[in-house]
Amino acid sequence: MDRLLRAHIAAFAALATLAFSAGAQADELQARANALFKPIPAQAPALPGNQATAARVALGKALYFDRRLSKSQQISCNSCHSIGAGGADQQRTSIGHHWQRGVRNSPTTFNSAFNFVQFWDGRAKDLTEQAGGPMQNPVEMANTPAAVVATLKSIPGYLPRFKAAFPGEADPITFDNTTKAIAVFEATLTTPNAPFDKFLRGDANALTAAQKEGLRTFMDKGCIACHRGVNAGGEMYAKFGLVKAPGKEIRPDADKGRQAVSKSPDDAFVYKVPTLRNIVLTAPYFHSGKVRDLGEAVRIMGETQLGQALSDADVSSIVMFLGSLTGDQPKVSYPELPPSGPATPAPDYP
Amino acid sequence: MDRLLRAHIAAFAALATLAFSAGAQADELQARANALFKPIPAQAPALPGNQATAARVALGKALYFDRRLSKSQQISCNSCHSIGAGGADQQRTSIGHHWQRGVRNSPTTFNSAFNFVQFWDGRAKDLTEQAGGPMQNPVEMANTPAAVVATLKSIPGYLPRFKAAFPGEADPITFDNTTKAIAVFEATLTTPNAPFDKFLRGDANALTAAQKEGLRTFMDKGCIACHRGVNAGGEMYAKFGLVKAPGKEIRPDADKGRQAVSKSPDDAFVYKVPTLRNIVLTAPYFHSGKVRDLGEAVRIMGETQLGQALSDADVSSIVMFLGSLTGDQPKVSYPELPPSGPATPAPDYP
Repeated sequence: MDRLLRAHIAAFAALATLAFSAGAQADELQARANALFKPIPAQAPALPGNQATAARVALGKALYFDRRLSKSQQISCNSCHSIGAGGADQQRTSIGHHWQRGVRNSPTTFNSAFNFVQFWDGRAKDLTEQAGGPMQNPVEMANTPAAVVATLKSIPGYLPRFKAAFPGEADPITFDNTTKAIAVFEATLTTPNAPFDKFLRGDANALTAAQKEGLRTFMDKGCIACHRGVNAGGEMYAKFGLVKAPGKEIRPDADKGRQAVSKSPDDAFVYKVPTLRNIVLTAPYFHSGKVRDLGEAVRIMGETQLGQALSDADVSSIVMFLGSLTGDQPKVSYPELPPSGPATPAPDYP
Repeated sequence: MDRLLRAHIAAFAALATLAFSAGAQADELQARANALFKPIPAQAPALPGNQATAARVALGKALYFDRRLSKSQQISCNSCHSIGAGGADQQRTSIGHHWQRGVRNSPTTFNSAFNFVQFWDGRAKDLTEQAGGPMQNPVEMANTPAAVVATLKSIPGYLPRFKAAFPGEADPITFDNTTKAIAVFEATLTTPNAPFDKFLRGDANALTAAQKEGLRTFMDKGCIACHRGVNAGGEMYAKFGLVKAPGKEIRPDADKGRQAVSKSPDDAFVYKVPTLRNIVLTAPYFHSGKVRDLGEAVRIMGETQLGQALSDADVSSIVMFLGSLTGDQPKVSYPELPPSGPATPAPDYP
């Protein structure tokens, strides 16, 4: 994998040395960008086998905000993936059950349907599988599928919502349906119409001169070896420290990334390449969440992934481009959650 | 024929008497209720000296959801006063800084502008004063006014919002303006058009027969000695245990209520009478949050405040009426929070 990535980077760097005629530069930049990136589509992406009916999306939204999915009844999906904070939580690593800290920075739910796998280490193949994880993680929501289902069944207002979302099912309140509904709501959390998307669609003035310069730097330096496609990331794995290992405070030895999933020594410190969409909204950065400054994150990437000491000017330029990746944030009305019933378990707390 | 006619006439006469008496009864019930209660107004109430401009309400909404007002940057107003859960948090007592438990159940922010004072013990005279409390409470948001202001000033997106909300002020990001904006947003969180409001406004069919019976029971038993006015509560103090002390598990000895504020022995176990608006959405009940069942709460009230052992039928009847106090829940779109800046303090965590 290392060798393949390095070859990719070399190829892109070679491409970058080619000269372009001044007159064709703008067109050329758009053409180059369009060969590497795709705009966020206006329509939410469809999830295979999980129909995004209005009833199912509405149910998923309620579940996304319902803290009763956690053992303490204090933590919801929105706790760590806040709709108001770019789909993340502004924390180094998230605060979970009984104020325990998770080990990795909360990845954004926005545009997450475009990722090729889910979680930093890709241990979930899709959003539906992902949605079941945090509910069961002892340092996150600390619950069990059986307890989640029992709680949802005890809340009288949920049965009609599940029936509408999963018509024809005799017993629709299941853990699978819970994760399906959450996933289908999450798939609606896309952020189209970023300046960069408008540029890709042909509006040459959608980016400022500095952002265009930043895009060029981003491509020329080889960032696009990993950060490309609709999500400017999210379509491959890469080792954090491909060329040079980052400091241990940023890449702690204890977290071996994908290796814990695949058991392959080749996957040590390998993570899913994160999306750069809305990146200015989702500090702090990296799986460890240890870097708060976007420029510093770019500098570290240059050093660890590309073996380059990026100049301050290059870093600033790339940061300018990254600012063009902020799209329209999802418009979400706060859902009315149905009240607990007499059989609803009490929140578990000490 | 005569006999048939007579029978018809007799039947009509009986029906007319019934209808008349039912009508008279409904009118009488409405008149009694209107002498004690007022409907929630369609318009949000004005706060003296705090103009509800669109810019100020929008700023207040962002602040209400912004966790960076807390020391940990994890807890917002909405954490304990959730828009999706009737303006409260479904917890016995709220979970605050480092998972510490508060001592009292989170009161709803909905319709709170109609309360004559704020907090269970009335230690804040209005919403603006109230809003400053939880930010500074060590077991809640654990912050300081100076740190709140420093954080808000470090977030570049807030300055234009404060300028728009407080035009003409040279240095608008202050703690006072922060609490003013939050208060003016909270004042919009009203829940008009409950069935009971429609009944008060003259729609005799807005309540079911059982709810009307419950309203009658509620008035006849004397609940209206304390629970009346626009909020069916919130306009006076009362001792919890006026006639008979409740069990210590429900009224712990350590919490003396208003006495801690007034220092008067007469105020031992005295609390602001809470609103009954949306009461079915805001379990658990009482300042201790120890009672989860609304019927049980009603039974305890009968015993402790009125010295009456309410029958099961009376309890059920009153609970039916309380269900008619659920109004239109506030429609709140989730705000887009401005990202932190380079000078924004890191969240404080262990």
